[in-house]
Amino acid sequence: MVFKYLEKKNKSHEKVIFCFHPETKLKAIVAIHSTTLGPALGGCRMLPYETEEKALEDVLNLSEAMSYKAAMAGLQLGGGKSIIIGDPNVDKTPEMLWTFGIYLNSLSGQYITAKDMGITIEDLQYIGDQTSYVVGRPIDRGGAGDPSQFTATGVYYGIKKAVQLKLKRNSLKDLKVIVQGIGAVGSFLVKLLYQDDVEVLVYDINESAMIAMKEKFPKVKILSREEVFKRDCDIFAPCSIGAIVNDKTVETLKCSIIAGGANNQLSDLSIAEKLQSKNILYIPDFVINSGGLIYVSSYLDPKKSEEWIRSKIKAVSSTIEELCKISFEDNVSLVQMAFDLAQKKIKRGKI
Amino acid sequence: MVFKYLEKKNKSHEKVIFCFHPETKLKAIVAIHSTTLGPALGGCRMLPYETEEKALEDVLNLSEAMSYKAAMAGLQLGGGKSIIIGDPNVDKTPEMLWTFGIYLNSLSGQYITAKDMGITIEDLQYIGDQTSYVVGRPIDRGGAGDPSQFTATGVYYGIKKAVQLKLKRNSLKDLKVIVQGIGAVGSFLVKLLYQDDVEVLVYDINESAMIAMKEKFPKVKILSREEVFKRDCDIFAPCSIGAIVNDKTVETLKCSIIAGGANNQLSDLSIAEKLQSKNILYIPDFVINSGGLIYVSSYLDPKKSEEWIRSKIKAVSSTIEELCKISFEDNVSLVQMAFDLAQKKIKRGKI
Repeated sequence: MVFKYLEKKNKSHEKVIFCFHPETKLKAIVAIHSTTLGPALGGCRMLPYETEEKALEDVLNLSEAMSYKAAMAGLQLGGGKSIIIGDPNVDKTPEMLWTFGIYLNSLSGQYITAKDMGITIEDLQYIGDQTSYVVGRPIDRGGAGDPSQFTATGVYYGIKKAVQLKLKRNSLKDLKVIVQGIGAVGSFLVKLLYQDDVEVLVYDINESAMIAMKEKFPKVKILSREEVFKRDCDIFAPCSIGAIVNDKTVETLKCSIIAGGANNQLSDLSIAEKLQSKNILYIPDFVINSGGLIYVSSYLDPKKSEEWIRSKIKAVSSTIEELCKISFEDNVSLVQMAFDLAQKKIKRGKI
Repeated sequence: MVFKYLEKKNKSHEKVIFCFHPETKLKAIVAIHSTTLGPALGGCRMLPYETEEKALEDVLNLSEAMSYKAAMAGLQLGGGKSIIIGDPNVDKTPEMLWTFGIYLNSLSGQYITAKDMGITIEDLQYIGDQTSYVVGRPIDRGGAGDPSQFTATGVYYGIKKAVQLKLKRNSLKDLKVIVQGIGAVGSFLVKLLYQDDVEVLVYDINESAMIAMKEKFPKVKILSREEVFKRDCDIFAPCSIGAIVNDKTVETLKCSIIAGGANNQLSDLSIAEKLQSKNILYIPDFVINSGGLIYVSSYLDPKKSEEWIRSKIKAVSSTIEELCKISFEDNVSLVQMAFDLAQKKIKRGKI
C-alpha cells in the first residue's frame, strides 16, 4: 500500500492519485513527489506492469528522480511522473488518452506530463486535446516535439567532462564507449560520439535497431546480451530502463566511468559505494540526463530562448565539475552529495 | 491495492488521492466516487485505522454512499469522502488540519469536506483556514455548524412514513424504538421521538452518554450490549458505525422496520434479502439520512433558503413512499431499487 511503502522507504512524496475509468479501461497513477520549486513535470509511461504494486513503485521512484533532476538543473519545477497500466500496442486508444487528459486537467497544472516509454508525441497530442498541461507535442502542432536529442546532448557534454576529470583527456577520440540501449536518446548519443571518432559499442534488445545503426555508422560494434555488461570499455552509458547497474552487473562491469541517459540507473544507493570501491566514476543520472527536461520546460515560458536552452544544457557539465571536485577532494560519495544538494535546494524552495 | 479492489468489487470510483505529509504526520485519503452531478461532497473521518487497507475500504464505501445519497435527495452534488489515519484524541494538531486544508484546496473544489467521526466543527475551522471547500464550520464563524439535527429530522420523518406504510399507523405514540448509538444524530432523534410519546430504548458504547440521556428523558430505557440486537421493538434505528446489520445481528433482530441515521448500515447487499424474508422493512440509509447533507449543501448556494431546506428534508419521506409503493407492488427489493435509481440518475447527469 501507498503510505506503508512511503514510510518504509523514508520517502516524502506529496501525493499519489489513482485514476480509474472502467469505460475506457484507464488505470493510471500520477505521483507528485514535490511541487516546492514549481509544478511537477515528468513524463507518462505506459507499460503492461505485472502488478499494481510494481506500477506504483515505478511511478514513485521516477517522480522522485524528476524532483532532483529539476533541482540540479536549476529549473523552477517540481517532480512528478505518471504511469498507465496496459500494453501500449494493444490497450491504447484515443478515448483512453482523452480521459487521461481530463484527469490531468483536473490537477490544474500541479502536474505537467510529457513523453516516456510507451507514449509517443502523437499520444501527447490526444492527451493535449483535453488539457494544456502537456509538453512535447508534435512540432507541426506547435509542440516541443521529442526532447531525446537534447537529453543525448547533455549526456554527451557530461561524458566529455567526466573524461576530462577522471581520465585527464580533453578529447574522446579513440575511447571505447558502450551505449546500452539505442532508443531515441541512445541512438542520438551514438551519433554524437561517432562524430568524435569514439569506438562505439552498442547493445539493444531490439535487434533490428542494432542492424539499422550498423548500416548508418559502419564502425559501430554490436554487442551480444552476454557481452554488454562484461566487455572492457572506458565509458559505460546506460540509455534504457532503470536499475541496470545492480548487484549482479556491478561485479562484471569493466569501465572507468558510468554516464548515460537512463533514469534511476542504480538499483539502490548501496551500489554507489561498490562502484567507488571499484574506482568507477558514476555520474548521477539525475544530474547528467536533464537536457530533455530543460528543453521541454522552455515551452512553459515564452521568454525562454534557444540560447537559454543551450546554456542550461552546457551548465550540466559545470555542475558535474563542481560536484566531482568536492567529491574527489573530500572523498565523499558523488551520488550522495548530489542527492543532498538537490534535497537542500528543494527544502529551501519555500520562503 | 486500489485498482485491484475497485475491479474486484465492480466499483467505478473516479479517483483516489493519497496525501502524505511526514512533517505534520498527515496520512489522508480522499476518495472521489463521482463528480457527474456536481462537486463531490462528503465528510472527513479521523480514526486510528488498524491498517491502510481498512482505511481505504472505508473511504471507498463511504464516498460511494455519498453519491447515492446526493442523487436520491435531488442535490446537484457528486459523492466523495476523506479519511485521516490517526487517533483524533492523540494525533490531531492544527498543523495537520491546516496541511489537510492545503491538500483539499489543491483539488480546486472537486471535493468539498464536512464533519464526520473524529472531526469537530472546530477542526473544520482549521481546515477552512486554508481552503473554502469546507461546509459545517462553527455558526459564529459564519458556518453551517453541526448538521446532525437535520439528519435526525429527516430520519424522524422517514420513520413516520415507514410506520404509516408498514404498520398502517399515522402516529408513533407508544411504539417501541431502539436507537442504537446516541451521538449527535441519535440523541436528537431520541428527543424527537420522545416528544411523540414513543417508548425509546437506547444503547451506546459510551455509558455516561446513556446516563445523561436518562437524566434528560427519564422514560428512556437503557439497554445493555447484549440486549440491543435482541430486544423486541417496532423500529430499530442504527445511528452509529456502519455494517451494524450483518450476518450475525440479522438473526437476532426482532423489529418490523429498520430506519436510522448511520451510513452503510448493511454489511453487504445480501443482508437486504434476509431482512425481506424476515418481513423487516429496511429503509435504505442513503435515502433516509440525507438531511444533514441537504442542510450543509445549502451553504454552497446563497439562493437556497431555510424554506428550501425544510421542503427538501420533508421530500425524503415522499421518496420513501414512492420507493415503497413500487417495492410492495412489484415485490422487488427496496434497496436494490434505490441503488438502481440513484445510479441511473448519476449516469444521466451528463448531457
